[in-house]
Amino acid sequence: MASQPHDSSRHDNTLAVIRTLREQGPAARVDLGILNGISSATVTSISAELLQQGLIAELPPDTPRPSGRGRPKTLIQLAPEAACVICVKLSINELQLVVGDYSGQMQHSEHHSVATLALTPADLVALLEEKIAEVRSLALASHRRLVGICLAVQGVVASHSGTLIWSPALSFRNAALAPLLTERFGCPVLLENDANCIASVLATQPAYAGYPNLAVIMLGYGIGMSLLIDGVPFLGANGSAAEFGHSKYQPGGAQCACGKRGCVEAYAGDYALYRKAREVLELPAGDSAHPSEAQMQALTQLAMQGNPDAQRIFAEAGRALGYGMANLLALFNPDLVLVTGSGVRGYAAMQEAMQDAIDEALVSELIGPTRIVSCPWDRDMTCLGGIAITLQATDSQRLTES
Amino acid sequence: MASQPHDSSRHDNTLAVIRTLREQGPAARVDLGILNGISSATVTSISAELLQQGLIAELPPDTPRPSGRGRPKTLIQLAPEAACVICVKLSINELQLVVGDYSGQMQHSEHHSVATLALTPADLVALLEEKIAEVRSLALASHRRLVGICLAVQGVVASHSGTLIWSPALSFRNAALAPLLTERFGCPVLLENDANCIASVLATQPAYAGYPNLAVIMLGYGIGMSLLIDGVPFLGANGSAAEFGHSKYQPGGAQCACGKRGCVEAYAGDYALYRKAREVLELPAGDSAHPSEAQMQALTQLAMQGNPDAQRIFAEAGRALGYGMANLLALFNPDLVLVTGSGVRGYAAMQEAMQDAIDEALVSELIGPTRIVSCPWDRDMTCLGGIAITLQATDSQRLTES
Repeated sequence: MASQPHDSSRHDNTLAVIRTLREQGPAARVDLGILNGISSATVTSISAELLQQGLIAELPPDTPRPSGRGRPKTLIQLAPEAACVICVKLSINELQLVVGDYSGQMQHSEHHSVATLALTPADLVALLEEKIAEVRSLALASHRRLVGICLAVQGVVASHSGTLIWSPALSFRNAALAPLLTERFGCPVLLENDANCIASVLATQPAYAGYPNLAVIMLGYGIGMSLLIDGVPFLGANGSAAEFGHSKYQPGGAQCACGKRGCVEAYAGDYALYRKAREVLELPAGDSAHPSEAQMQALTQLAMQGNPDAQRIFAEAGRALGYGMANLLALFNPDLVLVTGSGVRGYAAMQEAMQDAIDEALVSELIGPTRIVSCPWDRDMTCLGGIAITLQATDSQRLTES
Repeated sequence: MASQPHDSSRHDNTLAVIRTLREQGPAARVDLGILNGISSATVTSISAELLQQGLIAELPPDTPRPSGRGRPKTLIQLAPEAACVICVKLSINELQLVVGDYSGQMQHSEHHSVATLALTPADLVALLEEKIAEVRSLALASHRRLVGICLAVQGVVASHSGTLIWSPALSFRNAALAPLLTERFGCPVLLENDANCIASVLATQPAYAGYPNLAVIMLGYGIGMSLLIDGVPFLGANGSAAEFGHSKYQPGGAQCACGKRGCVEAYAGDYALYRKAREVLELPAGDSAHPSEAQMQALTQLAMQGNPDAQRIFAEAGRALGYGMANLLALFNPDLVLVTGSGVRGYAAMQEAMQDAIDEALVSELIGPTRIVSCPWDRDMTCLGGIAITLQATDSQRLTES
C-alpha cells in the first residue's frame, strides 16, 4: 500500500517521457525533466529502464542539437522498431491501412477501394481480418511486435465496448467489431471515431495550445465533430456525443443520410452539396449520392470561379453550418473551433454566409471570445491520430501490467 | 517541498469531511472515514482541529442514531453559528435575500418586488448594498461572521471576473458587480448563474447520483441550463456555456428576449407562451410581456383543463423544447436531463410534443440511453445552491490560506 502513490507517479512520469519523445522527437534528459516537471534523477532512472527494454535509443553524442547553444548533450529518442501499431480507417468506399512505428511515424500506407455499403457484417469482419493480416506480416518484418490495432471510423461508435453503432459508410448498425478483432489478432483493438483521432493530433500542435476547450469540425461526405474538454475527448453517456452533423438546422428540412430531416449535414455534407448542385449544374458523371473527391473538386471549382448557382449552394451550406455553430457556441462556448476534413476545400465559399448566420443567430455576448478557424486537410491525419491514441493506450496498459 | 503532497491531501480530506456533514447531517467519525475513504486516525485529527476552531460540535452521546443498530457512537455536526453566507437571487422584478448558516441551512429569507428592468447599474449596486447591509446586521446577531456573499442571477455571467454579462432581468449589460460588492463588504462575493446553483443542489441528491454528465434545464420566464460534466459545472471559454434557451429552433423564427429570432426560449419561455396565448385566449390582465406566476398558473390551468388553444400553444412550446433537446443530445449525449424551474408547471402539457419532436429529429442511436425527467420546482432551490457553493468556496479558501 505504502508504495502505491510512488508507483503511480512513476507510471505517469514514464508515460510523460514517452509522450514527449513521440510528440517532439529526440530530446536531452534534462529537457525531458524540465518539460514534464520531473527531477533529473527520475528521468535518468526512467530512461535507464526504457533503454534496457529497448524502447529508446541514445543518439550518437556528436549529433548536432536541433537548436540552441552550449555543450552538446546526449539526446534520446524512441526506438522506431521497438513496436508497431496498425490503424485501419473505414470511410465511404475506402479502406486505408497504415503501419505506425513506436515513434508514432507512419511507415506504410495502402488504400483499397471497397463498396462499403454493400458489405454485410460478416463481409466486413472477413475483409478486415484479411487486410490486417497482410499488413501485419509486412509490419513484423521490421518491428519487434504489434502492440495494438486501431479502427478509425466515420460515424457513431461506443468506444468502451468497441461497438460500431452507426456509420454512413455501412448499411448495417450495431456491430461489435473490436472484440472480434481482439480475439483474432491477440492484441488490444481500439474503435475510435475519426474526428476524435484528428482532434487528438491537432490538440498536440503548438498553434492550438492554450485552447483547452476545442471543437474540431470535420467536413466531408458526412460532418463529424470532436469536442475536447480540458484536452480530453468528451464522449458522453454512450460515446455518441459531438454529433454536430446531426444537430438541427431546419426542423422538417432536407433529407439527411441518417434518415431524419433538417440536420446540418443534410445541407453542408458533400452529398448534400452535390445533390443540390446536380439539379442546376453540369457536373462530372459518377455516383452522385456518394460523390468522389474529383466530383467535389469540380463543384468547388465552379463556386471559386464565380458560378452564381454554385456560389448560392455553398452559401446555403455555410448558412446551415453557421446555425449549427451558433448552437455549439450557445451550448458549449468553446475556446476554439477548428474546421477541417476533406470538405474544407469548399470552406472559402461557405465562410461568409456561415459568419453572417452566426451573427444573425446569436447576440455578441453568446458568441463571446470563441475563435473559428479552418485548418488544411491532410488525408493521413486520421490514421496518424489513430496511431498516437493506440500507442498511448498500449503504453499505459503495459506499464499498468508490469 | 516534501510536505506539499501531505498538506494538499489534508486540505482535501478536511473539505470532504465538512462537505459530508453539510450534505448528510450529523455523522460518526468512523462513518465519515468510510464515506470518504480516509483513515480513522485522520478523521479524528481533522475533527479535533475543527472542534478547536469551533466549526463543528459533538452531539450529546445519548442522542439516538438516525438509523442503524449497535452501541451509539458520538456524532459530530457542523456548528450552524460558526459562520454565515448571504445569497441574493436577482430575477425579473424580484430580489430574494437569504441567510445560510454554516451547516448550509436557510435561516432567513426575504423577497422584495423591484422593477428590475428600470434599474441603472448604479441603482442596482446601491440597492444591493442597502439590502445586503440590512440582512448582514440581522445575520451577525446569531452567527460569528459573514464569510461570503453569492449573487445568483438569471442570465449569462462571467464567474471568473464576477461580471454580469447579460440578464433578462436587467436592461443594461456587462456590469462588474462582484468586485464592487467585495470591496464594500470585505468578503468574497461570487457571481453565479442561477441554473448552476440549482444543478449543484440536484447533483448532491441520491436520486441523481450515478449520472456524472447531467444537464439541468430551467424553464421559466427565460430558459436556462447547467451542464455538469463529471459532476462539475461546465462554464466554457467565458462562462457563457449552456445557454440552451438561445440555441435555435427555427432560423428567422419567433422574436426572443435576447434580441434575436428563433431561439428555443422564444417558443417555450413564459413570456413566449403568454404572448401566443393572449392572441386567442381570455387571460388575467397584468404585464403580459413579463407574466406573473398567477398569470402563468391561469394559462397552464386552461391547458390542463383541455382548452384546445392552450393545449396547442403548450404543444408548440414542447416541440421547440424537443428540437432543442435533440441538439443537446446530439452534441452532449448526457446521462440525464432534468427539467425544472417554475415553468415545469406546464411540463405535462409539453411533454408529449417534446418527446415526439426528439423522435422526429434524431435516430434512436443518437438518443441513446439518455433519460429525460422533470423535477418539482422549489423556489428556494437557487438560494440553497448559492449557499452551498459559497460555503464550499470559502471553506476551500480558508484552508488554503491557513
